[in-house]
Amino acid sequence: MGEYTCSTEQIAQAVRTYDGVRRKSEIGAMVRDLQIDSQAVVASFGEDAAVIKNGSDALLLAADGIWSKLMDADPYWAGYCAVLVNIHDIAAMGGKPLAMVDVFSISNDTIKKQVIAGMHDASRQFGVPIVGGHLHPDTPYSVIDVAILGIAPLDNIIYSNTACSGDNVLIAIDLKGRVHPSCVLNWDSATLRTAEEVRSQIRIMEEIGSRKLVTAGKDISNPGIIGTLGMLLEVSGKGADIDLTAVPHPDLDEYKITFDHWLRMYPGMGFVLTAKREHVGTIVSLFHQCDMTVCSIGTVNDSGELRIHNNNSSALVFDFSKNGGVMHLGTYP
Amino acid sequence: MGEYTCSTEQIAQAVRTYDGVRRKSEIGAMVRDLQIDSQAVVASFGEDAAVIKNGSDALLLAADGIWSKLMDADPYWAGYCAVLVNIHDIAAMGGKPLAMVDVFSISNDTIKKQVIAGMHDASRQFGVPIVGGHLHPDTPYSVIDVAILGIAPLDNIIYSNTACSGDNVLIAIDLKGRVHPSCVLNWDSATLRTAEEVRSQIRIMEEIGSRKLVTAGKDISNPGIIGTLGMLLEVSGKGADIDLTAVPHPDLDEYKITFDHWLRMYPGMGFVLTAKREHVGTIVSLFHQCDMTVCSIGTVNDSGELRIHNNNSSALVFDFSKNGGVMHLGTYP
Repeated sequence: MGEYTCSTEQIAQAVRTYDGVRRKSEIGAMVRDLQIDSQAVVASFGEDAAVIKNGSDALLLAADGIWSKLMDADPYWAGYCAVLVNIHDIAAMGGKPLAMVDVFSISNDTIKKQVIAGMHDASRQFGVPIVGGHLHPDTPYSVIDVAILGIAPLDNIIYSNTACSGDNVLIAIDLKGRVHPSCVLNWDSATLRTAEEVRSQIRIMEEIGSRKLVTAGKDISNPGIIGTLGMLLEVSGKGADIDLTAVPHPDLDEYKITFDHWLRMYPGMGFVLTAKREHVGTIVSLFHQCDMTVCSIGTVNDSGELRIHNNNSSALVFDFSKNGGVMHLGTYP
Repeated sequence: MGEYTCSTEQIAQAVRTYDGVRRKSEIGAMVRDLQIDSQAVVASFGEDAAVIKNGSDALLLAADGIWSKLMDADPYWAGYCAVLVNIHDIAAMGGKPLAMVDVFSISNDTIKKQVIAGMHDASRQFGVPIVGGHLHPDTPYSVIDVAILGIAPLDNIIYSNTACSGDNVLIAIDLKGRVHPSCVLNWDSATLRTAEEVRSQIRIMEEIGSRKLVTAGKDISNPGIIGTLGMLLEVSGKGADIDLTAVPHPDLDEYKITFDHWLRMYPGMGFVLTAKREHVGTIVSLFHQCDMTVCSIGTVNDSGELRIHNNNSSALVFDFSKNGGVMHLGTYP
């Protein structure tokens, strides 16, 4: 199985039409319908977590739900991921995760026990407590939603919408993992790591925030590496040229996945970052300390287009100026 | 339609077996399965919001979902209530609500628009922004879950588990309302009030917290007046004798509801509070300023039993010592 079985155009098409990306397209309308004025809110939609000013602190608030497909496939893993994705949201902002709450709708006792076990194990591993929430014990469906509170000095926050033209685009990712047995689209590294290892991976993002080493950042979520970069560029009002041959990946033959499959995977620990060239060395060495791989895969520009390149061919993935972005945010927030 | 068509034993039975109360009985097991150690968490399960220490501040975090029955009956009202119940959770703790996030699972476009309109209207009326969240646009069910962040000085927090023997039990409630046309179990006062009125009702709880006027408090939620008091007594490890004839209520004939129906209603603005006798006058006058009614309906004791009295008859509602409480918490947290 070769690494590049698809043309760049096919890869661009695969990213654009992937469910994990398409599902983001209705966010824009919802944002516009919900918005009210508030002075304390420094940033909200389009960021991994909202930023609420409290003196010199930023309080970070985020929420995430778990795709029903995952709940159907593996309730334990759904519970684990419900916690994991929320911790990623705070880490991506350079914050320290403090506590989570959940809303759990469930009637099946076996599924409930497995989801709770998954949540508990992730909560204990990352050291972030679940402090309350709400239980619907009698619903015809099984849904787990989690919200998280984090904190950081306001000056240290890593935003999504602050990428600058000329910045390096970096992918930081934990390649020591496995294709999760219950979900071929999940690259699971976290469950193979010790508590100390995953906590140090989260802390690295706090350090990067406090040392102002990046201009923007976002955790790689369901839209995958290129889809997540698309969201970051969309809210930054920028474009980028990306070299697909530079994208870090595990041994594709060993894990029996294609490169375009890898691009759509949700990694257990992964971030898209943009940074000035002079900070790249420091960032690489920081992530190396916690056994993560960092590669520079391209450069931010002012084109408003995300283009991928592969040796001699190239393709347009998103043209943000034509409202063909990931989230359809229209005017950038 | 007389006020007391039921015997006290029938009322006790109605409260105990009411879905809004029974649905709380599985919380205990879930709490035990999720708990991990964390030094920053001052209070969690059993409180309306978790309390996380941040210097001299308490960060308050809560989450609530909306019963699927309500979503089926009236999506606008479900959206409105999703916001309202979360604001109540922060107010009950004496906190200031700062911001909310939501997780919305929906595929039906008409329902989606109505839920968002309800959320937006409540958010604007109370002045608490929705700052982010997650949207599942393709689920076979419609679920709206909201989480909220609030803040207060740590010393001002009103807890549920701090009621003392000898305290007055107070019910503070906005009686200027209506039976909601879409749900006979909702006493809607909030939508009939101006933004300034509902905000002042929320601020009263902040003031009561800062002036240390109560020993404990909880917002009256789905379990209704007596069910909510039961939850407060359960976590406080106390009991109470309650005089049903003292419970504040609207004109039951005018609204065509029975007294036992009223006891099970979820009010648009209502709190159960416990307070030393010397503070009752001040509390009454504070709530009077925002057009709410306060009545002293009984006294906290050490019996571990919630008993209701009605003229010459009485009945036991909950015996907490026998693990027959609302939440089945077992050992008090």
